[in-house]
Amino acid sequence: MDSAIKVGVVGGTGYTGVELLRLLAQHPQVALQAVTSRSEAGTPVANLFPNLRGYVDLPFSEPDMAVLGACDLVFFATPNGIAMSMAGELLDRGVRVIDLAADFRLKDPAVWRQWYGIEHSSPERLDEAVYGLPEVNRAAIGAARLVANPGCYPTTVALGLLPLLEADCVAGALIADCKSGVSGAGRGAAVGTLMAEVAESFKAYAVPGHRHLPEIRQTLASASASPVNLTFVPHLAPMIRGIHATLYAQLSGDSVDVQALFEKRYAAEPFVDVMPAGSHPETRSVKGANDCRIAVHVAPDTRTLVVLSVIDNLVKGAAGQAVQNMNIMFGLDERCGLRMVGLVP
Amino acid sequence: MDSAIKVGVVGGTGYTGVELLRLLAQHPQVALQAVTSRSEAGTPVANLFPNLRGYVDLPFSEPDMAVLGACDLVFFATPNGIAMSMAGELLDRGVRVIDLAADFRLKDPAVWRQWYGIEHSSPERLDEAVYGLPEVNRAAIGAARLVANPGCYPTTVALGLLPLLEADCVAGALIADCKSGVSGAGRGAAVGTLMAEVAESFKAYAVPGHRHLPEIRQTLASASASPVNLTFVPHLAPMIRGIHATLYAQLSGDSVDVQALFEKRYAAEPFVDVMPAGSHPETRSVKGANDCRIAVHVAPDTRTLVVLSVIDNLVKGAAGQAVQNMNIMFGLDERCGLRMVGLVP
Amino acid sequence: MDSAIKVGVVGGTGYTGVELLRLLAQHPQVALQAVTSRSEAGTPVANLFPNLRGYVDLPFSEPDMAVLGACDLVFFATPNGIAMSMAGELLDRGVRVIDLAADFRLKDPAVWRQWYGIEHSSPERLDEAVYGLPEVNRAAIGAARLVANPGCYPTTVALGLLPLLEADCVAGALIADCKSGVSGAGRGAAVGTLMAEVAESFKAYAVPGHRHLPEIRQTLASASASPVNLTFVPHLAPMIRGIHATLYAQLSGDSVDVQALFEKRYAAEPFVDVMPAGSHPETRSVKGANDCRIAVHVAPDTRTLVVLSVIDNLVKGAAGQAVQNMNIMFGLDERCGLRMVGLVP
Amino acid sequence: MDSAIKVGVVGGTGYTGVELLRLLAQHPQVALQAVTSRSEAGTPVANLFPNLRGYVDLPFSEPDMAVLGACDLVFFATPNGIAMSMAGELLDRGVRVIDLAADFRLKDPAVWRQWYGIEHSSPERLDEAVYGLPEVNRAAIGAARLVANPGCYPTTVALGLLPLLEADCVAGALIADCKSGVSGAGRGAAVGTLMAEVAESFKAYAVPGHRHLPEIRQTLASASASPVNLTFVPHLAPMIRGIHATLYAQLSGDSVDVQALFEKRYAAEPFVDVMPAGSHPETRSVKGANDCRIAVHVAPDTRTLVVLSVIDNLVKGAAGQAVQNMNIMFGLDERCGLRMVGLVP
Repeated sequence: MDSAIKVGVVGGTGYTGVELLRLLAQHPQVALQAVTSRSEAGTPVANLFPNLRGYVDLPFSEPDMAVLGACDLVFFATPNGIAMSMAGELLDRGVRVIDLAADFRLKDPAVWRQWYGIEHSSPERLDEAVYGLPEVNRAAIGAARLVANPGCYPTTVALGLLPLLEADCVAGALIADCKSGVSGAGRGAAVGTLMAEVAESFKAYAVPGHRHLPEIRQTLASASASPVNLTFVPHLAPMIRGIHATLYAQLSGDSVDVQALFEKRYAAEPFVDVMPAGSHPETRSVKGANDCRIAVHVAPDTRTLVVLSVIDNLVKGAAGQAVQNMNIMFGLDERCGLRMVGLVP
Repeated sequence: MDSAIKVGVVGGTGYTGVELLRLLAQHPQVALQAVTSRSEAGTPVANLFPNLRGYVDLPFSEPDMAVLGACDLVFFATPNGIAMSMAGELLDRGVRVIDLAADFRLKDPAVWRQWYGIEHSSPERLDEAVYGLPEVNRAAIGAARLVANPGCYPTTVALGLLPLLEADCVAGALIADCKSGVSGAGRGAAVGTLMAEVAESFKAYAVPGHRHLPEIRQTLASASASPVNLTFVPHLAPMIRGIHATLYAQLSGDSVDVQALFEKRYAAEPFVDVMPAGSHPETRSVKGANDCRIAVHVAPDTRTLVVLSVIDNLVKGAAGQAVQNMNIMFGLDERCGLRMVGLVP
Repeated sequence: MDSAIKVGVVGGTGYTGVELLRLLAQHPQVALQAVTSRSEAGTPVANLFPNLRGYVDLPFSEPDMAVLGACDLVFFATPNGIAMSMAGELLDRGVRVIDLAADFRLKDPAVWRQWYGIEHSSPERLDEAVYGLPEVNRAAIGAARLVANPGCYPTTVALGLLPLLEADCVAGALIADCKSGVSGAGRGAAVGTLMAEVAESFKAYAVPGHRHLPEIRQTLASASASPVNLTFVPHLAPMIRGIHATLYAQLSGDSVDVQALFEKRYAAEPFVDVMPAGSHPETRSVKGANDCRIAVHVAPDTRTLVVLSVIDNLVKGAAGQAVQNMNIMFGLDERCGLRMVGLVP
Repeated sequence: MDSAIKVGVVGGTGYTGVELLRLLAQHPQVALQAVTSRSEAGTPVANLFPNLRGYVDLPFSEPDMAVLGACDLVFFATPNGIAMSMAGELLDRGVRVIDLAADFRLKDPAVWRQWYGIEHSSPERLDEAVYGLPEVNRAAIGAARLVANPGCYPTTVALGLLPLLEADCVAGALIADCKSGVSGAGRGAAVGTLMAEVAESFKAYAVPGHRHLPEIRQTLASASASPVNLTFVPHLAPMIRGIHATLYAQLSGDSVDVQALFEKRYAAEPFVDVMPAGSHPETRSVKGANDCRIAVHVAPDTRTLVVLSVIDNLVKGAAGQAVQNMNIMFGLDERCGLRMVGLVP
């Protein structure tokens, strides 16, 4: 595999990390060079994640610029605030970078500080960073050195609303009622994500404000001729994987064939599946898969459009989209290593 | 227990049935006379539902008008269409009736036929039937002979929206994005509610039209000065019990203190709990309990009001509300037999 | 409620704590005086556990010997090692004590040190402490000042094996294959009990040795004429509540009617339900209830006896059994406040 | 793909069917010719299973011997009793057959009738049929025309016990305490497998006798010098996929290094992973993967050996093992199309 892409992963102990390793381990064009973790350095990766036994033989290692700097591509699957402190040096060494965290997603460093609570340490890189939503920025991703991999909610919501905004056929308040499995909250020890807290229950959270709100607004605004009035309410669903966005918009002007609009918009997209009229996508249909499935409805006796959009938050909402971006950046078939059928049941 | 209410239950093999039996078995003023089931006649109730061993000693029996007609009250926990064929004779014998199914909920028999697919066999009883939502119809329930126990979604949505409509402080489209546990679909054998179909997945269903839509509209319309434009989208959540309604409305006119509005509206209600500002109610906080918990928010940077309303679909959404109605009808303390703390964790 | 038992709870922030509060709040003979927590002092209990809104009005408070010392009874729902440092002073003030942790369960302080890793600070109290399994020690519990509430696994296993050992009808190795819901692991933040780690998976744990092993052996040994050779393997099941013990023993000597043996042994027990021959008890049948349900089988073509024993680990395995012990200690009907039907579905 | 294996699937509407289609759709050497279902004939497969959208374009079709007879291989993913009526004609036409049901697993037609309740219609094929457990019968599978794919429990138990029986190092009663996810019960509509019945509960079932008992005994007997005394107790765990077998055996004779015994036995097996001493395999580590993970322990203070063995019941316990058998039968790399990492979390 001489032509393989030499890949490093910084921060491989979380859920996006282990999912990224699952995908990279099965990718035919990737040669994994290092998986770093300060807390687990020395431990074989497969000890922490036995599903990787036989697939990943590396131990976790301390981050080492000599090793990472020799890679073609480094993924950051770290908490927010790490990538912005390390990406610059890697880019200077000619390494391309995909950040699965939020460091480079927002264009305005003031907004970043407002929502993430710390000063951005590399504001000069924000312009260069390409927001890694292939369905919007494919060409720019292909030319990018630094890709900001989108958040899970923003991916689900944007793919569900973009055709409407681009076609300028809705008006008034947009509602994004989103439901996520608990893996989106990460692998950190916390009372709020214990099985005994989450199972057999359902709740909204962060109604007063969630970090993905400005990211969604930024993406929608760039596609919309008029200002976007968005209400975003995330909920925690008692399951591990999956996001279901239920999106509400008021149709403006004359009637439009929204089914046809969506089908045309995504006709060439390998990972967006517009289902037949009348469908109700289930999150399990994309469990472990990189697909986004969408269905569109008009609510009875109203002009309210209802868009249903589902992804696996760890795949199309994180690691899978990151690999999709890698494929684009390195000129591979965009589906390479991502032809995976959702796990049903 | 000479003064006990003599109670019969028609159709005790479903989930609302077993839940009703759980509550009645622990109710200090109830003497259970019969639990009928054609399919299980002769089987001890506690064989089918071992949680009732030691609490319910009766066998299921064939429906027998001599036995039921000697009761003070008969509950129908049957599929739709049964109560309307039997209630008349019981009422004529002086027995009061609470129907947990949908037979007497809609005032207009034409609407009933449209949504339930069969002709209503007792349209002449629809006027007499009282819609058993105590927070709206307490006095009428107290005087009623025939009570139509509300649906689970309609209870959750109505309690969350009524204060706004009564105060006439919202305008435009109302959105009710509702999530239900699977017990709401009943105990019938069906592929769609198998564990392997429902667990670890999330989906919307019946977006083109759900039977609870006309029921919700009827209740909201009676509280609203202007026509109600409601979009109702139910979802199936991977859990057994619980409904979470996320309700969206656009504030009209000048600012209103919605927190105070809700607190005042429900100050005297024993089973509606308006949580402190900023709260996010969890369905598990009412698991097995008759409470409805509500929190109100205004979404950031918008005039969108977000109301979160949770109940246990089998308790406040069915059997508990039925017992609450019984308590009112028989002049008992409304909380009698219903002082149950939600099961956490 | 002048005659009410004045009760204090030390350590009310864990799962056994909140479950104890649920039961005490509904107990007709209890007046709750204080719920202590150093970390949450000042916070209303119902803020942490909204299911208790309207039932428990107290805030958490710092442990205060003046308040606790004025109680009739203090429950410890604390981590291991706390009760043994505080019980002495309470007992000296005439307060009775029930410890839901492990401090007073093992009679031999050397064994305690071996399994719990610290020196026992009150070894002189171990003799006085009564092991609070009513089905074995009812009379002693009634006279006790200090009760060691049994562990969840030991309760399930002991109730399933005691009739066999007392009747001396088994020989050879005993196997206790136990499955527990995750609430048994407590409410502490830990990666291993996150929803995303536990759901949709099953595993054994602590096969090389679990703290409940010496406790089970101690109880079984006291009922058995011969030494007990026990293998105990606990498993983590993807659910919140419930323990299922599957117990294997080899029948010795001539045939014995084990069904009759169990029925006779537990005929007078209010909370042990021997099911009809051929039954398979489900943990959900005791969810939220203080019952232990047992069924006995002989495996086909063997002399292997298979006993199935289920409890709710937080009720009969912790808080419910503690309340049962309280009832016995204070001369109440043993079922007082514990007549609760399991929550099905 | 001229050299692709032409494959037909009879009975593709159940869980083993959809899982088989997931694997076949991603297999590089398979050309799917037909998926039959009498009840769904005409419906696109991907309508019933949207996870297959974009991967399987065929509709379900009526079983047609002209189509199936032109295949190289036909899988039966049907209920018991179908394959035995159709396999003969296919074999006569030169088509190889793998039956995922039980029709050809038991060598003795009298035992088959006893456990499956009907007369075997092709007893003359039982001798030819090869029991498709590659770890035992690899060479015979390679030469077989008719393969009986093993049951899920038998696979888990056999792989966990065979090294001990082959080495003749255990004596006395063997205990197989097995826990299965609910997908093992199939996709048929049934009350007992509803989400509201299975979730948040745990139970044993079929203790008086399960169809997999004779199959396990047959496999173990063929590896053991002495008669096998096996007790098998299956349990239903509240999860979709996964089997965990906890196996108990009494060590005979002198000490043996069981860890080394297992490692040596499975050193060359691509899909059996003997974990390091002290491990506790989780079923999720093999979710969606064809691996069997095994760990061995000796219980403290006893001579009881405890073997922990986990598989995904739909993969190594059904469809994955079937594909593994196909690979062997057609001379492919045994891992072809089966290099899949378990889905964690």
